[in-house]
Amino acid sequence: MQHLIRTGISLEKELLEKFDRVIHRKGYGNRSEAIRDLVRACVVDEDVEKNRITVGTLTLVYDHHKPGLATRLIALQHDMHGQVLAATHVHLDHHNCLEVIIMRGRSLEMKSFADKILSLRGVKHGKFVLTTAAKNLP
Amino acid sequence: MQHLIRTGISLEKELLEKFDRVIHRKGYGNRSEAIRDLVRACVVDEDVEKNRITVGTLTLVYDHHKPGLATRLIALQHDMHGQVLAATHVHLDHHNCLEVIIMRGRSLEMKSFADKILSLRGVKHGKFVLTTAAKNLP
Amino acid sequence: MQHLIRTGISLEKELLEKFDRVIHRKGYGNRSEAIRDLVRACVVDEDVEKNRITVGTLTLVYDHHKPGLATRLIALQHDMHGQVLAATHVHLDHHNCLEVIIMRGRSLEMKSFADKILSLRGVKHGKFVLTTAAKNLP
Amino acid sequence: MQHLIRTGISLEKELLEKFDRVIHRKGYGNRSEAIRDLVRACVVDEDVEKNRITVGTLTLVYDHHKPGLATRLIALQHDMHGQVLAATHVHLDHHNCLEVIIMRGRSLEMKSFADKILSLRGVKHGKFVLTTAAKNLP
Repeated sequence: MQHLIRTGISLEKELLEKFDRVIHRKGYGNRSEAIRDLVRACVVDEDVEKNRITVGTLTLVYDHHKPGLATRLIALQHDMHGQVLAATHVHLDHHNCLEVIIMRGRSLEMKSFADKILSLRGVKHGKFVLTTAAKNLP
Repeated sequence: MQHLIRTGISLEKELLEKFDRVIHRKGYGNRSEAIRDLVRACVVDEDVEKNRITVGTLTLVYDHHKPGLATRLIALQHDMHGQVLAATHVHLDHHNCLEVIIMRGRSLEMKSFADKILSLRGVKHGKFVLTTAAKNLP
Repeated sequence: MQHLIRTGISLEKELLEKFDRVIHRKGYGNRSEAIRDLVRACVVDEDVEKNRITVGTLTLVYDHHKPGLATRLIALQHDMHGQVLAATHVHLDHHNCLEVIIMRGRSLEMKSFADKILSLRGVKHGKFVLTTAAKNLP
Repeated sequence: MQHLIRTGISLEKELLEKFDRVIHRKGYGNRSEAIRDLVRACVVDEDVEKNRITVGTLTLVYDHHKPGLATRLIALQHDMHGQVLAATHVHLDHHNCLEVIIMRGRSLEMKSFADKILSLRGVKHGKFVLTTAAKNLP
């Protein structure tokens, strides 16, 4: 269990009231939790920028009838086997599959892997996002 | 199999050469495939903007020791059961889990569900992305 | 002068130390100022999402030799005259101009105006960002 | 005048029809112009990623009554005088100013300058975007 520290911040009354309304709408239980999330997101962005170890999720939609594509996707993932943690597959319709590939590694390497996957013929669309590896994120 | 149409576009020579270098680095086999991907991405953005049926992936990192959190996460996903297609769980370390929730539905509804999840106490970081439901995306 | 309120938040020691390093690198003088900026950005995002009055900046690069373009740009800005606050023009080279158009209005209207400008023949690239109209942002 | 080259691409009929509807709504006169814009944006992203010379626009909202802020803003811009091309100032209300600073330089240097400005006390919100220096962008 992490040791919690209490710190004070000064904010304009009107700003605080507006913020309270926004976070209430989003579903936050209290202000402290909402600010912690903002602080964490700021720290995660820094990890991504500095090419530290982070976790990446690549979402892609592809046509599994495209000859050779499934084999190519598996081969590329095996080349990254140290980094790929899991992959989930969903059948969207007769032709289309959604695959989510979860990785842990350096931001730039994962980005380059994502570029390779997304440029394959038959891969129609995709998005790559980076989050924290959580190791050092309380 | 979709019927392919050939269309011609005019581009400045220098721009085309620069584009060819960029897509080669990304791994594209040919120019036509790269342009198809740009066109598809443009069409997907429109679907998202217009609140049409799309597919969303919510990536979140949370502390599974936080009391009540796992139960809350499952309950919220069950409320969305028509939309949640799959969820994948990865154990990052002793405390931290990564979960990827794959949904299909209206962009705005999924965004609001993502807000609710990300505002839970114990959920440390997360990102939500939208891609295509592929139904009408050749 | 706005009335400042002091509020307390609890954070994990390690997270706070990491945050302090990040904001020091960015140049913040103290933690309170950095958190105020995060809180303001969160409130601004909400204004944008809810289509409230915000301020938008459209940056575009275009070829001023393209026949009719300059006239078209001015005509479109005049149609939005109530919203366009200022426009700055920079000569990038013999052919290319950079123009920054500053507007105040509803997010969606400004977005649609930006689409119209960016789709003009001769406009090569551009980006549109939304910030706060500041009226109610302490 | 740049030499135009005609190139052919193959697209699914349905995708092309959907794309035509989207670009018509945005205001494009024809398909070729819309695809050229997508290609240019792809090439610009690469310039930004590779830290090449680009053009950046920093939009910021600040309270000009904050003691010392105006002086600090001018001093920082003078330190970057080789890069700052122009700055436009708009009075939003009694307290708040909007300033747009246009720069040309390496992406990373401009990003770090933007961080310094946005972290100043009294600067309430801001956004930084990168576009092309156009030198080599037909």
